[in-house]
This record gives sequence, structure tokens and C-alpha cells, in this order.
Amino acid sequence: MNRAAISPSPARGPVDHEVRDQIVAAATEHFRLYGYEKTTVSDLAKAIGFSKAYIYKFFDSKQAIGEVICAKCLHEIETDVRTAIDAVDRPPEKLRRMFKAIVESSLRLFVENRKLHDIAVSAAAERWEAVRAFDGRIQAILRDTLRQGRETEEFERKTPLDETATAVFLVMRPYFNPALLQYNYEYAEEARPHLSNLVLRSLSP
Amino acid sequence: MNRAAISPSPARGPVDHEVRDQIVAAATEHFRLYGYEKTTVSDLAKAIGFSKAYIYKFFDSKQAIGEVICAKCLHEIETDVRTAIDAVDRPPEKLRRMFKAIVESSLRLFVENRKLHDIAVSAAAERWEAVRAFDGRIQAILRDTLRQGRETEEFERKTPLDETATAVFLVMRPYFNPALLQYNYEYAEEARPHLSNLVLRSLSP
Repeated sequence: MNRAAISPSPARGPVDHEVRDQIVAAATEHFRLYGYEKTTVSDLAKAIGFSKAYIYKFFDSKQAIGEVICAKCLHEIETDVRTAIDAVDRPPEKLRRMFKAIVESSLRLFVENRKLHDIAVSAAAERWEAVRAFDGRIQAILRDTLRQGRETEEFERKTPLDETATAVFLVMRPYFNPALLQYNYEYAEEARPHLSNLVLRSLSP
Repeated sequence: MNRAAISPSPARGPVDHEVRDQIVAAATEHFRLYGYEKTTVSDLAKAIGFSKAYIYKFFDSKQAIGEVICAKCLHEIETDVRTAIDAVDRPPEKLRRMFKAIVESSLRLFVENRKLHDIAVSAAAERWEAVRAFDGRIQAILRDTLRQGRETEEFERKTPLDETATAVFLVMRPYFNPALLQYNYEYAEEARPHLSNLVLRSLSP
């Protein structure tokens, strides 16, 4: 972390936004090296070269900083999911690609990146707002894809759409929710195609 | 724990078996009060009134005692599952009952009984032998039920039986595996019927 890059300023406006970004960037680096759970706001302040009080001007708590980092990771996963879905036309293939992308992207972010992993686990276990919002957006993507498949008559229409969307979400969730994924990651690569097949059989008209 | 009930004896044979049972009973009580993770073999020895060396004559480690307790809990769940399945005739209803029984029994054992819960979480997270054996037996019950449903033509037969059994197992697993269930238990009651319906739709011929 280059301390010189951070120039605290009491001024309001765009500068606030820059300081927040700088704190988040420094915190990400610090958490990556030392872990989220074990780091205190004092540790962060020391590492960044700010006073603790100054950090508290911009963030209410360590969790508030963690939430921003977590939201960025989840945004990356969501982008991967949307890219995967947009790459194909047929709803069944969209669902298959979505499941693949969400698992691979989560594994990459949360498992390969062990030190950021504990932010994600805290976030998932404690249901941070960023996680609840992400879950909501994933369910919305699922509902859209299921609706499309019903329109093209590739998916059955008897089951209420919301029930189907919830159930498919619940089948996928253990393979992208970081708190669950930590106990599942050895299975994830093998489980995914079997579960995709099961879900698609359940959707057939 | 009534210490007078425990009469250590160096003799071999059936007495060994009794002492093992006494250690397990005392350990269960102790773990229930103080938790598994935080208890050492020394704590247990003190509580039971045995020497640590004496306990090590019968069990290699704390985990070995935990495995016996865990195996008993899992045996209880398996009995509940078998009872639920045997109570009905049709394979689809058997599956539905199986899922209900395994979730309810796991919630009762692992969630309501908070102090034994941490043995179960360790067991599941570290894949103790007792857990692997249990998973194997649950998969076997699933395979039998699926095979029956294929014979009665209530279930589709195109998908290889093992793939179907694995996939259905993976859908249920987050709701009975204690390491996963700790992050899922608020969802479990609501998720179960939706997931049962999804699985049954996936099995329809």
C-alpha cells in the first residue's frame, strides 16, 4: 500500500468519495494479507496511516468497509453470470450457463482468494445487506430466464413461477453462497452438471 | 453424571464394552453442557473421575469419543428416515416423507440441541468416518426408492440411476448435513416442500 497515494481532506463532495475509495482499496489489500476477522479498525488505521477517528468519519464500522468490498466481489460474480446468460439464446442453455458461471466465479473469488474468503463467509453467515441484495438479483435473473422458457414452451407452466424460481435458487445456492460453499467446494465441480440436469428435467413441459 | 455408576476395571472382555459405554455417556453429558470444541480429554477425565491415561486405553482421542456420539445421532436420524419411508407405499410419497423426516430429525438433533451441535459440525466439516458412512447409507436408501419408482413406472428411467441418486442426494444434503444446516436452518422448513416438488417433477416419466 502506497501511503503517499492517500490524501485525507476534510472537504465534502467528490473528495469524500475518493477518500472512501482509498480506504476501501487499502482495506482490501490489508484484509487480503491478514484476513478480515482478525483485523481491527485500529490495525487498518495504522496500516493506512490515518487516525481511527478519521476512518470513522467515512465508515461506521469495519463491517461497513467489508460490505463495500463484498458488494464489489458480488458485482463481479453478477457480471459473469449476465455475460454467460447473454452468450446463448435458448433458456435451458442460459440456465446451464448461469449455474456454471455462478459456481466458477464464486470458487475463484471465495476459495482461491483465501484471505478475502472470510469477509465473504461473515457476509453470508450474518446476511449482510450486500448479500441479501445479491440473492435478490440472482432470483430476478432466474425468474426472467424461467419466464422466457415458459414463453418459448421449453419449460413447464403449471408450477407457479415464484415457486419454481425459489426452488431453482435453493438448488444453486449451496454452490455460490460462501458460507455454504466452504463445505461444498470439493463437490462443486462434480455436483453442478448433475444438478443442472436435474433442474432441467424438473422444468421440462 | 453419577460418578458412582462408573466402575473402571482393567479386565478385558464385556467389561471393556461397558466402560466404553460409560465414558461415552459421561462425555455426551459433558459435551451437552460445555460443548465439544472447548472440552479437552483432561476436562473429560476430571469430570468422569478417571485418569486421562485410563480414557486413552479405550479411545485414541477426543474425536474417537465424538465419533461414537455422532454415530448414535446419525443412527437416530436414519431410523426416523426408514420409519417415514416404510409408513407409505408409493415411491414418490416415500421420497417426500424421506426428505421431511431427514430435515426434521436433523433440526431436532443438531439445532435444538445446541451443545451437541458443535460435534456434528466438526464431524461434517472434517468428514468423519461416521458421517461418510451415514451419507453412504442415505444414498443407498435413495437408490432403492428410485429403483422402486422406476419399476412401478412412476419415475423416469432414461437418466442413469446413479446420477439421479447423486443429484437428489445433493439437493437434500444442505438440509441435513450439520455444517451446511447451520447456515440453512431458517430456510429449511420453507425450502423442503419446494425442493421436494422440484425433485418429483424432475423424476416424472
